[in-house]
Amino acid sequence: MTRVIAKRRILRVREAARTHRVDSLAAEEPLEIRLNGRPLTVTMRTPGDDFDLACGFLVSEGVVGSAEEIDTIRYCAGATADGGNTYNVLDVRLAAGVPVPTASLERNFYTTSSCGVCGKASLDAVRTVARWEVDADPLALRAEVVSALPDRLRADQRVFERTGGLHAAGLFTADGEPLCVREDVGRHNAVDKLVGWAVRENRLPLRSTVMVVSGRASFELVQKALMAGVPALAAVSAPSSLAVELAEASGLTLVGFVRGSSMNVYAGEHRLRGER
Amino acid sequence: MTRVIAKRRILRVREAARTHRVDSLAAEEPLEIRLNGRPLTVTMRTPGDDFDLACGFLVSEGVVGSAEEIDTIRYCAGATADGGNTYNVLDVRLAAGVPVPTASLERNFYTTSSCGVCGKASLDAVRTVARWEVDADPLALRAEVVSALPDRLRADQRVFERTGGLHAAGLFTADGEPLCVREDVGRHNAVDKLVGWAVRENRLPLRSTVMVVSGRASFELVQKALMAGVPALAAVSAPSSLAVELAEASGLTLVGFVRGSSMNVYAGEHRLRGER
Repeated sequence: MTRVIAKRRILRVREAARTHRVDSLAAEEPLEIRLNGRPLTVTMRTPGDDFDLACGFLVSEGVVGSAEEIDTIRYCAGATADGGNTYNVLDVRLAAGVPVPTASLERNFYTTSSCGVCGKASLDAVRTVARWEVDADPLALRAEVVSALPDRLRADQRVFERTGGLHAAGLFTADGEPLCVREDVGRHNAVDKLVGWAVRENRLPLRSTVMVVSGRASFELVQKALMAGVPALAAVSAPSSLAVELAEASGLTLVGFVRGSSMNVYAGEHRLRGER
Repeated sequence: MTRVIAKRRILRVREAARTHRVDSLAAEEPLEIRLNGRPLTVTMRTPGDDFDLACGFLVSEGVVGSAEEIDTIRYCAGATADGGNTYNVLDVRLAAGVPVPTASLERNFYTTSSCGVCGKASLDAVRTVARWEVDADPLALRAEVVSALPDRLRADQRVFERTGGLHAAGLFTADGEPLCVREDVGRHNAVDKLVGWAVRENRLPLRSTVMVVSGRASFELVQKALMAGVPALAAVSAPSSLAVELAEASGLTLVGFVRGSSMNVYAGEHRLRGER
C-alpha cells in the first residue's frame, strides 16, 4: 500500500487548539490507459489495482466482455524522460480478432447520431452497446441484506479509515456475502476496478449479484453496472434522474439512501422480497 | 427550476413499513459544449446555469480568462432529428483573435511531453497554463469564518434540500459573505458554473476570495480554483495527495474536513489568522 497513502504534515485546528501533526492522504496520480499501443484515456486515480481499472474501463465502454478478449496488460517502461517507469502508463493488447474502437470512446454513451444529445439518446446508446440483459435476472433481495451492505462495504475498506478520502464499490451475493471490494479517489474508478476484477476472473455477466457504492448513483455508475451484467445497484446516497431512468428502462433494481434500516427503491422493486 | 428537479414514484422502506410516494430527484442530462461550432466535450450535468458551466470549463482549460474573449454563447437549435431544441447543446464563439485550442483539451493537465505521466508533470502543466499567481495574494482568513462556510453554502443550496443529490460550490469574501453559489450532480460542474459566473461578470482573477466545496478536494478542483485565481479552497471532506501537492506548489491555501469548529489545513496555513 506504499503508493495508496501519502503522508503529509498538516495544521490541525480543534476549537482554539492548533497543532501540527502528520496526516494520511488518499493518493491520487494520473493513469494513462493505452489500447494496442495507442493512448486511449487518462484518469486521475489512486494507484493500485491498475490492471483491473483498465479492464473495467474497457468493459464499461463496450470494448471487451471476457478475459479471452484481452491478450496482455503491462506497464510501459521508459515512460519518463530518463527512461524510468512511473507505473502510471499501461497498455492493454486485445486478443486477435477483437475490434479496436476507432471513434472517441467518450461520446459513445452520451450521444447518438439519430437523436441529438439528450437523456433518451444516452439510454438508447447504453442499451445498444450492452452485451447482456439484466431484465430477467432472477435475483431476489431481502431488505435486511441490503441494509447491511454499507457496513460490509466499509468493513472491507482498508484505506478509507485512514484517510477518509476514498470512494468504495463492492460486489456482493444475494445473501450479502462480499465477492470483491475496491477503493479509489474517483467513484467511477472504484467501480471500474471492481468490474475489471470480474472480467479478468471471467465472471461476466455478473448475474444475481448486487453492486454497492459508497456515494451517489449517477447515470455513469448505472451504465457500468449494466455493462457488467449486474442486476442491482445500491447506493448510500441519492441517485440522479437519469440513473433512475436508465435503471427502469433496463430492468435494473436501483436502491438509494441505504441508511440503517431505511432505503428508497427507485426502480425494479420486484426484486425486494419478504418482510423485514 | 423545472428541469433541475425530476419527480419519480418510489418505494420507501422504513423498518417494516413499505409505502409508495413521490420523490424529488436531482436532474441529470448530457450537455455538449461546442467551441466555434466544433464539438469540444460532453458532460453529464444538472440543467441550469449552462452558459456559466461552459465558460467555466473554458477557463479551467485555459482557453479564456475574461469576458472580452467570449463573443457569443447560444443553445444550438435543430439539435434533434425533428429540428427541436434539447437545450443540451450549446456553442461558444470566441472573440476575434483568441486562439482556439487544437489538441485534445482533456490531456492538457495530466501529461506533458517532457516527463511522461506523473503527478509532477500534472502540477507543472497547471502552472504553465495558469494566467495568474495566487502565491502573493494577501487574503487572510479567520478560522471562525472558515468554520461557518459549509453552513452558509448549505443555506444557499436550493435543490439539495429537496433531493440530497447535488454537489455545491460557493465563492465567498474573506469575511464569509457569499458572492455566488452553484449546484450540480457533478462536483467539477458545480465549480465550473461558479467560475463561469465569475468570468462572465469579468471578475477574474478572483483575488482575496475563498471557494468552498461540499465534498472532497481533488487535483481537478484545486486546478480549477487556480485557473480562476482563487487563493483559498475549503472542502467539507478530505483532499487527495495530488490536490495538496498542487496547492502547496502554487501557494494556494487548502483546508479540508471543515466540520463544526474543526478543520485541517493542508497547505498555505499562513493565511489562517488570529485566535478563534
